[in-house]
Amino acid sequence: MIVIMRQHASEDEIQGVVRLVENAGLKLHISRGEERTIVGLIGDVRRLDPDTIAFLPGVERVVRILQPFKLASREFMPSHRPIPVGDVLFGSEEVPVIAGPCAVESEESMLRIASFVAHAGAAVLRGGAFKPRTSPYSFQGLGEPGLHILAKARELTGLPVITEVVSPQDVELVAAYADVLQIGSRNMLNYALLHEVGRQPKPVILKRGMMSSVEEWLMAAEYILSAGNQEVILCERGIRTFETSTRNTLDLSAVAVAKKLSHLPVIVDPSHATGRSDMVIPMTLAAVACGADGLMVEVHDDPASALSDGPQSLKPEAFADMMSRLEPVARAVSRSIAAPRARKTTASRDRMAEHADKLGDAGTLWKASGEGE
Amino acid sequence: MIVIMRQHASEDEIQGVVRLVENAGLKLHISRGEERTIVGLIGDVRRLDPDTIAFLPGVERVVRILQPFKLASREFMPSHRPIPVGDVLFGSEEVPVIAGPCAVESEESMLRIASFVAHAGAAVLRGGAFKPRTSPYSFQGLGEPGLHILAKARELTGLPVITEVVSPQDVELVAAYADVLQIGSRNMLNYALLHEVGRQPKPVILKRGMMSSVEEWLMAAEYILSAGNQEVILCERGIRTFETSTRNTLDLSAVAVAKKLSHLPVIVDPSHATGRSDMVIPMTLAAVACGADGLMVEVHDDPASALSDGPQSLKPEAFADMMSRLEPVARAVSRSIAAPRARKTTASRDRMAEHADKLGDAGTLWKASGEGE
Amino acid sequence: MIVIMRQHASEDEIQGVVRLVENAGLKLHISRGEERTIVGLIGDVRRLDPDTIAFLPGVERVVRILQPFKLASREFMPSHRPIPVGDVLFGSEEVPVIAGPCAVESEESMLRIASFVAHAGAAVLRGGAFKPRTSPYSFQGLGEPGLHILAKARELTGLPVITEVVSPQDVELVAAYADVLQIGSRNMLNYALLHEVGRQPKPVILKRGMMSSVEEWLMAAEYILSAGNQEVILCERGIRTFETSTRNTLDLSAVAVAKKLSHLPVIVDPSHATGRSDMVIPMTLAAVACGADGLMVEVHDDPASALSDGPQSLKPEAFADMMSRLEPVARAVSRSIAAPRARKTTASRDRMAEHADKLGDAGTLWKASGEGE
Amino acid sequence: MIVIMRQHASEDEIQGVVRLVENAGLKLHISRGEERTIVGLIGDVRRLDPDTIAFLPGVERVVRILQPFKLASREFMPSHRPIPVGDVLFGSEEVPVIAGPCAVESEESMLRIASFVAHAGAAVLRGGAFKPRTSPYSFQGLGEPGLHILAKARELTGLPVITEVVSPQDVELVAAYADVLQIGSRNMLNYALLHEVGRQPKPVILKRGMMSSVEEWLMAAEYILSAGNQEVILCERGIRTFETSTRNTLDLSAVAVAKKLSHLPVIVDPSHATGRSDMVIPMTLAAVACGADGLMVEVHDDPASALSDGPQSLKPEAFADMMSRLEPVARAVSRSIAAPRARKTTASRDRMAEHADKLGDAGTLWKASGEGE
Repeated sequence: MIVIMRQHASEDEIQGVVRLVENAGLKLHISRGEERTIVGLIGDVRRLDPDTIAFLPGVERVVRILQPFKLASREFMPSHRPIPVGDVLFGSEEVPVIAGPCAVESEESMLRIASFVAHAGAAVLRGGAFKPRTSPYSFQGLGEPGLHILAKARELTGLPVITEVVSPQDVELVAAYADVLQIGSRNMLNYALLHEVGRQPKPVILKRGMMSSVEEWLMAAEYILSAGNQEVILCERGIRTFETSTRNTLDLSAVAVAKKLSHLPVIVDPSHATGRSDMVIPMTLAAVACGADGLMVEVHDDPASALSDGPQSLKPEAFADMMSRLEPVARAVSRSIAAPRARKTTASRDRMAEHADKLGDAGTLWKASGEGE
Repeated sequence: MIVIMRQHASEDEIQGVVRLVENAGLKLHISRGEERTIVGLIGDVRRLDPDTIAFLPGVERVVRILQPFKLASREFMPSHRPIPVGDVLFGSEEVPVIAGPCAVESEESMLRIASFVAHAGAAVLRGGAFKPRTSPYSFQGLGEPGLHILAKARELTGLPVITEVVSPQDVELVAAYADVLQIGSRNMLNYALLHEVGRQPKPVILKRGMMSSVEEWLMAAEYILSAGNQEVILCERGIRTFETSTRNTLDLSAVAVAKKLSHLPVIVDPSHATGRSDMVIPMTLAAVACGADGLMVEVHDDPASALSDGPQSLKPEAFADMMSRLEPVARAVSRSIAAPRARKTTASRDRMAEHADKLGDAGTLWKASGEGE
Repeated sequence: MIVIMRQHASEDEIQGVVRLVENAGLKLHISRGEERTIVGLIGDVRRLDPDTIAFLPGVERVVRILQPFKLASREFMPSHRPIPVGDVLFGSEEVPVIAGPCAVESEESMLRIASFVAHAGAAVLRGGAFKPRTSPYSFQGLGEPGLHILAKARELTGLPVITEVVSPQDVELVAAYADVLQIGSRNMLNYALLHEVGRQPKPVILKRGMMSSVEEWLMAAEYILSAGNQEVILCERGIRTFETSTRNTLDLSAVAVAKKLSHLPVIVDPSHATGRSDMVIPMTLAAVACGADGLMVEVHDDPASALSDGPQSLKPEAFADMMSRLEPVARAVSRSIAAPRARKTTASRDRMAEHADKLGDAGTLWKASGEGE
Repeated sequence: MIVIMRQHASEDEIQGVVRLVENAGLKLHISRGEERTIVGLIGDVRRLDPDTIAFLPGVERVVRILQPFKLASREFMPSHRPIPVGDVLFGSEEVPVIAGPCAVESEESMLRIASFVAHAGAAVLRGGAFKPRTSPYSFQGLGEPGLHILAKARELTGLPVITEVVSPQDVELVAAYADVLQIGSRNMLNYALLHEVGRQPKPVILKRGMMSSVEEWLMAAEYILSAGNQEVILCERGIRTFETSTRNTLDLSAVAVAKKLSHLPVIVDPSHATGRSDMVIPMTLAAVACGADGLMVEVHDDPASALSDGPQSLKPEAFADMMSRLEPVARAVSRSIAAPRARKTTASRDRMAEHADKLGDAGTLWKASGEGE
């Protein structure tokens, strides 16, 4: 940490800084320039709040040199440690695709969509049982019955399921059903919740706050890591800007930046980032090209009745199209789209086919496209 | 709600919209222009999610006509209903000042600062017992012992106390001690927490999310109101922008906008908004001039040892200066700075004087300035 | 300037920095910490581009210590030097109000509005002859004939006029008519234009770019100052954020920050900042309360035919109301609304009365309110 | 255009809107709902300023239905019309790469870098002769002598050159030397300049303003198109947000959005967007994957002496690496990196080899990698 004194800081003011630093058990070095005196702190200053010094009389600015996060940093763990979910690895050569409806609406629709996306190549199922909604009058999710449905979808497809948890009180319940817990964008700074998911063993997907810098995102991860859970997957989902043609602005350079600063896997959710189904495919292609370690995509098969977030969901045909276009891009950057094996038991396939029969046009498409597998 | 169809929307697509609207029990009106067909919905569409329609084939855009909030709106309650806290009223002609340290650090410092700000004219005490901090390694507040200290400060000064609650599990505990519960900026979208504070009777100060629009802020208030608690005070505390010379950008036009849209009182926190003690006084003056219904200001008497948020706290002298400069501005806009009576019992004054003796220079200043009262 | 090396920077990399710094004729000081080596530069580094060093191998970050602007800084000129315009002073105890229509639309309307605002207390007239418009199909201003009309308005009212210049080629022409040249928000980074207005003697109002930091704003002022023109008035007019209830977000803390960093006067334009006439009065009151050195407000008397920017213009009655409410706030912060004398010759008053007769309701109001003057 | 009246708008207010609309020669349709009356305008309303109506008494909001741009829209020209530059096509199946130094610094360095990037596969050369710089004390470019050097680089490599023009007065001069004129981000709203480049025949690359929405960007293009020049190439170069780990936030979804709204080619400049050389390669791969019609990348061979924008420039080796990694991604999305033929005359190759000899390590690399061509 470097303390820059004001132009005409007095000797007393400089000594005030010296005292505080020495009281904190740190060494220092004073450099007296023509225009400014600068005090450099030596030692592990991570626990010293820069604001404490910034407030001292005569101090102009405090410059941090070390990153404020530690467990999340590459300096702490230089190489990636892949995080297993089902039979795929996040943070490895393979790129898993998480897919499913925004919200779990009914058993029938969940199983139908799950069957479809499993068949089309998804590695993890998603579906919200607890939905944070802007309006108290909007559908807030099915709650615990939604979790039961997710468990059935897992049983049917053999794929692990991810679902959001919105309150510390619900963590135990959700962890009993889900394979991965999701912290949503609006809760990235909900430290009570971060602490709670950090104290249970299931992997956590931590979405970037729509107003949060990459550094704050990694600090939120640090909350989970420092509570004991080392399996954190970061998820970029767009930040809020002045641009209105998309719901948020997908910040793909944040993916590359976060991967440079941290050893944690970073995935991308283009559905929530753009809020437009017609932007999802181009953005998934871009995400894989720039190094994303996974994708999370919303799929819905009956848009007109979607209870939440309709405009950003892909129809099944579009999802199948996306999967077929992703693979060549992944190969072009020496990766591959993760292809889970678990779901491919004959029994499971038969049951999935039953559900697919209810899928109408999209189902037909699936059966057609699935023929040669 | 108005549905704008794409340029070459087919008759089938138009009928798809018609069916969905009629199924929802609403009437509609179709207007076929030269370039676009437009469908107008008639009736109470508040519970119909615009996204449901926006996703239908052939739909270009859905335009909402009614505000999405209801209980928080002026259409619902045209005039202000002042909210009493202690013996002052938020949302009335008088402008209460809330003051105190960012965090409760020790009984001694809390009582000392409380005595000072009470004497200098504050109407409500503030102090954080549960502190949401960016880093898991920063001081997170004293927790329950901090609440005990706040209760002593109330007893000493006769002033009501406000403190933040960060988790649904803590609401009951915090409400047992505090006169007003604060929802911080980072929790504005923590719906589980909003719901919980809406189910208890103490007034709630709802800080605007640092990246939330005025509309979302009012929707967050709607969560609390719809859970049963009608006493919500809004607090503008700066939004995140590209500007870096202040920590956030204080959005004073949001005060005027929120007061126009809603009957709820709106106060301003310039300490967190600007993050700079030298900006606090100009911004409080501006806030009162443009109609703020109250102020929340951080005061600290020993900056070098402040455990959190030092650079934005006023020293006691500066706070006294602020109070003396606020009154003329309040009068210039036909208001007054609220002057609570409760603390002025002789016993209380004596006890406060004891604490003031420990205040050093600032205390001297107080005793001098308080002499003639 | 301080150069922070990467964690494991080699001695060669450190010496690379040393060489570059020494080649630039600067001295330096090396501090070898446990985790990082830091190089401090000594001497006037203002002409050394930090990027040049930041690019060197082994460099993690470069921290600037001095402000990049010089002529605009308080370090260069510690006290304000008021800038005279007509018979008022920008940057003094008095607060001049600039008023008029967004665009000069016709001689009749310009003279009518000019008469009104002059009578109601404006110190400077405004009106755009060259209008930068988002659409090439919108009204772009009357051009040179608009300047002739402004000259007539000055003759009629005795008040100086300010108008925008949008191209270097037009500077000479506009300066021949206007008393103050305005650089609009969209041209704040148009350096060719800044350079040109810096080479002529009329004062310049420099609006802040809607996405520019305070530092960049002062650097734009530095362009004008360094070209020779010392009379620059800064104008805060709102920045672009995610908030949509106002056109832009008026950043009043930027006024206080700019006045702290610079000796230049800072005025506020709430009309363009908010884009809403109902927000103009609260924001002018706030601006004066927090130290603005002037105001710029749009007034229009026939909104339904306004050729540009209607929704943000005050009607004459509202402008008169604003002027009467500003004075007490100005007094409350030990200032006054500037009251120019020039226009008060009898001849001028008679001619203004003629125009006022055409003002309809608003004119009646004027004559009524002006009676006792 | 749809006009939404306030809740209790009077019949007089409604008729005020009707009169204004009918006076403008438009038809209308009135829909009287339970809560609001809505007036729909029929006909070509593009020249009617929505603000004119929004300002009328009783009007709550005006909703535009048509895009404000016309010549730039897909509705005007449904399919892409590729724009030829040298022997490549922007807006076709092939993806041209524009490369070169940020600024032209000297003949020697320009020719050396030009030789290198031409050999490595660039299709167009870039280099700034007129540089818009934040500080008046920074290097502002060589001016006209820089244009002469660019002409030599074109002669040497056979590649067309692009360079920025910053003032209307310079357009003729710059157009005499450059094959493509660039409008920089800071001048996107410099309408005088847009108009001027619209009146000359060379293609124009229009960078998105760092504070501009996609709609405003297309409106800026409309200025050029409506002045007569149909050859406009859009360039996304990052927008300003709160994130500080990159200089700006590259908005790749804007590429997909702009291509959906407009027939104009859209290219991406990751160098200026991120300001970090280590982010350039991942972002170029992402840009090509999501459909960018070209790339613009800064290359510099002697970073320590770079006069501007060092940290964002690729070294020659990194540029060669980038080109080899782009091709597979382009193929994965059914495109190819444009491979111009012009430069491959024997004479030109010999002269380029001479310059390459001066390139040191990077040159060696080139010669090695170029061997088998």
